[in-house]
Amino acid sequence: MTDFVKDPNFQELVVDTTIENRNDEGPMTLENFTKLMVQFYELGWMRGSGGAMGCISGSELMISPSALQKERIREQDVFVYNISQKTEVQRPPNKRITVSSCSVLFSLIMKETGSECVIHTHSKSANLITQFIKSSTFEISHQEYIKGIYDPFSGKCLKYSDTLTIPIIDNMPSESQLLEPIRGVLENHPQAIAVLVRNHGLFVWGPTWESTKIMTECIDYLLELAIEMEKNNFKLVNEDGYEKEDNLSEKMRTLLFSDMAPV
Amino acid sequence: MTDFVKDPNFQELVVDTTIENRNDEGPMTLENFTKLMVQFYELGWMRGSGGAMGCISGSELMISPSALQKERIREQDVFVYNISQKTEVQRPPNKRITVSSCSVLFSLIMKETGSECVIHTHSKSANLITQFIKSSTFEISHQEYIKGIYDPFSGKCLKYSDTLTIPIIDNMPSESQLLEPIRGVLENHPQAIAVLVRNHGLFVWGPTWESTKIMTECIDYLLELAIEMEKNNFKLVNEDGYEKEDNLSEKMRTLLFSDMAPV
Amino acid sequence: MTDFVKDPNFQELVVDTTIENRNDEGPMTLENFTKLMVQFYELGWMRGSGGAMGCISGSELMISPSALQKERIREQDVFVYNISQKTEVQRPPNKRITVSSCSVLFSLIMKETGSECVIHTHSKSANLITQFIKSSTFEISHQEYIKGIYDPFSGKCLKYSDTLTIPIIDNMPSESQLLEPIRGVLENHPQAIAVLVRNHGLFVWGPTWESTKIMTECIDYLLELAIEMEKNNFKLVNEDGYEKEDNLSEKMRTLLFSDMAPV
Amino acid sequence: MTDFVKDPNFQELVVDTTIENRNDEGPMTLENFTKLMVQFYELGWMRGSGGAMGCISGSELMISPSALQKERIREQDVFVYNISQKTEVQRPPNKRITVSSCSVLFSLIMKETGSECVIHTHSKSANLITQFIKSSTFEISHQEYIKGIYDPFSGKCLKYSDTLTIPIIDNMPSESQLLEPIRGVLENHPQAIAVLVRNHGLFVWGPTWESTKIMTECIDYLLELAIEMEKNNFKLVNEDGYEKEDNLSEKMRTLLFSDMAPV
Repeated sequence: MTDFVKDPNFQELVVDTTIENRNDEGPMTLENFTKLMVQFYELGWMRGSGGAMGCISGSELMISPSALQKERIREQDVFVYNISQKTEVQRPPNKRITVSSCSVLFSLIMKETGSECVIHTHSKSANLITQFIKSSTFEISHQEYIKGIYDPFSGKCLKYSDTLTIPIIDNMPSESQLLEPIRGVLENHPQAIAVLVRNHGLFVWGPTWESTKIMTECIDYLLELAIEMEKNNFKLVNEDGYEKEDNLSEKMRTLLFSDMAPV
Repeated sequence: MTDFVKDPNFQELVVDTTIENRNDEGPMTLENFTKLMVQFYELGWMRGSGGAMGCISGSELMISPSALQKERIREQDVFVYNISQKTEVQRPPNKRITVSSCSVLFSLIMKETGSECVIHTHSKSANLITQFIKSSTFEISHQEYIKGIYDPFSGKCLKYSDTLTIPIIDNMPSESQLLEPIRGVLENHPQAIAVLVRNHGLFVWGPTWESTKIMTECIDYLLELAIEMEKNNFKLVNEDGYEKEDNLSEKMRTLLFSDMAPV
Repeated sequence: MTDFVKDPNFQELVVDTTIENRNDEGPMTLENFTKLMVQFYELGWMRGSGGAMGCISGSELMISPSALQKERIREQDVFVYNISQKTEVQRPPNKRITVSSCSVLFSLIMKETGSECVIHTHSKSANLITQFIKSSTFEISHQEYIKGIYDPFSGKCLKYSDTLTIPIIDNMPSESQLLEPIRGVLENHPQAIAVLVRNHGLFVWGPTWESTKIMTECIDYLLELAIEMEKNNFKLVNEDGYEKEDNLSEKMRTLLFSDMAPV
Repeated sequence: MTDFVKDPNFQELVVDTTIENRNDEGPMTLENFTKLMVQFYELGWMRGSGGAMGCISGSELMISPSALQKERIREQDVFVYNISQKTEVQRPPNKRITVSSCSVLFSLIMKETGSECVIHTHSKSANLITQFIKSSTFEISHQEYIKGIYDPFSGKCLKYSDTLTIPIIDNMPSESQLLEPIRGVLENHPQAIAVLVRNHGLFVWGPTWESTKIMTECIDYLLELAIEMEKNNFKLVNEDGYEKEDNLSEKMRTLLFSDMAPV
């Protein structure tokens, strides 16, 4: 048995991991959008017509419809808007179908962070963890999946021993009333790539749909794990192991995301 | 990055949410009926041949068969009855196959509330929550999914801070013996859109199959969440946050549902 | 809205539920056998190549192979044996593939009870409940899914308030060593339609494959529920509600099953 | 009803179980590789682009790509390397896609043990159990699924009453830093077929992809069960029942695996 990893030819298969790697599948399509809705339903993120996704693909913005069963959405049910020409590209034939009430939040998040995708889930873990954590931030450190989270300051992923911080805001009667609290999160937590809404769910944003989906899965895993840790009195943050990030600089904020945003 | 949500053209994509929005998929079909049975099986609602659905589509009433494995039901296995002409449209070729024993309950609920669909699940959460809650009502407030529940008095959805109340009745040896307890629920809880049957399961009804399915998913989520809340001594109802509904009027009851009922 | 259930034509859709109703799908086929293996894998019953099924279809006996991944079994991988002619009908092309080591147990159970199907699962609930219940029987009463369990004495289903009793035996190093303990169960618990093997799994048998599958799902639900009940100190058996079965007679044992057995 | 198991013809269907039985599906293919990625995603093992698999098929080594969503991997995304000729056979068209960072670990494990397959999961159970078990080994005995684990010393499976031991190592900032700890595991625990990485996941290796997948499922089941046992203060190891393995001999180590390795 050869130790293949030392072959020069094998080593050529390995390159540095950079953020561009993540965007292999190309721009979002309507076919993929509706398939992702089914997948998110099956993951328990979009039951009861809940949850939403907004995604920029080239000059087009795609947003899920409101109140429709997410696992049954057809391509024609997705709202498509040209953000360069500021024109409607497509809307559901049934004019009474409304664009997701999260649109106002997606617009703010995309504008402020340069993100091209926002995913909003009604994951049970996202809801329940906000009942365990009474403070205004969820924090966890020393977990492998933290390495799946981008840091908008550095454009790289967090390290295993970093502390992932997700702000928690209180829920409001309507989605639009979450606008100001989320604006506060974006201002006060410039490193944040997600926010938990108490008794409601989770918003995650990132430079591409692939990275946003991957981060949402990483966070959902960490939230579900954290609930078990809370129940068994395991500490979420290992203080001793915390490595202070020293290249954190506010002026770097959103630089990377903005560079990648096509609009 | 533009703040698209303020474009006049984008704003035209947004309209007021009304109840009619929900009914985009049109009338129930046999194909959809059997697909929903598979989906409900996979959600854990109809294991062991349990659970049932009754649905009015135009002048036809479709009801699932009794005792058959719900994930294997074919279109020909669904009972179809013309409620205008009072005639059988279709029944399973095997004459020994019986219509769901829930028929008597579905008939009562549809008649009394004007609902066009009733879904009966054997969800584990629906069963277990009735062992945590010893009183005769399950109540929860301040949860986003409460906004997925219709209020038959107002024809609108409940608000986030409203208290969702689901009556709990004791189980009986046979489904038909649940008739009088459910009649009592409909009389004493006119706002109810669901009832829990202790150690058994859940019944949910609504104006369309889409709204009924959506509400069943919302309630199932809330029941599963409530079990975790009970285990961890979190309060299900936030008394301080309770907003008294002031337009509740018994004479408005079922008006909306009746208007929509085609028969 | 009419109260359809009182229409004479609708009432004709309802007939007495008898045991024959359950057998609508007809005899087991190789296609269905392999589909069921996939389904049982997805239910968590047959992970890691574990679990097995034996089923009589006409004069043929079908048994799953040993050690193969159950969700990947092809029709040609199923052992088929003609029990009338005592001849091999089919075996996997790869002669090293062995018939399930449960064969010896299936043979005993089918012979002693007249059952045409035995399902053996490695469900996690079946394993864990045997760690909660230290005694030699699992008992639960007052659960709707108890109505899904046949009573071989009466040929009818148990009642809601009946106590379902499933004997628990200790595991042994090899499947064949379970032969005598299972023989003991069949002798001492003639009403049993299932046995739990501690730290191992569950065996369920019944007159047809449909009824056996339905019962396995009902029992799996009850075991998972019972674990939650044990954790929260809810009583599994409601003594007050116990209704003594008075037509239990040992001479009636297996009569029904034997009548239906084609061999 | 005949007792078929005693028929001479039926008995011919039964042969001794040997390790060769397990390898019925033949060599790994790209089609199967990508299907397994989907399956592992659905099992919760490879969320958020996590997890990896390396597999030798004839003279080819197949390894999953890094950072891509595992449930969306296409055949062209799998790295294929000829280990005899030491040449690249295939790599993703997008040259920025990197081979799994686990390659270095897979290479070590395959070289040291003669294994042809390594599966790396990010199962939640694998993570959480390392928080319950503070020591450096996970141990469990008297569980049926222990019989699904191969013993590289004997070339046979463990017995029901054996103690399965899985070493636990601490996580490191990068996968390559796990190289020395895993080398230590291979040296100090020559019987090991798996290692847990604290707050990260699980590595499992075996003579074929089939046996490795089966063992990973068995271990995942045991870990999930063990978490429930820990929560309820059930002992993982039954000391009294421990049967000392007496044919354990270090010189036999990897003999079997090496014999089967084609390279």
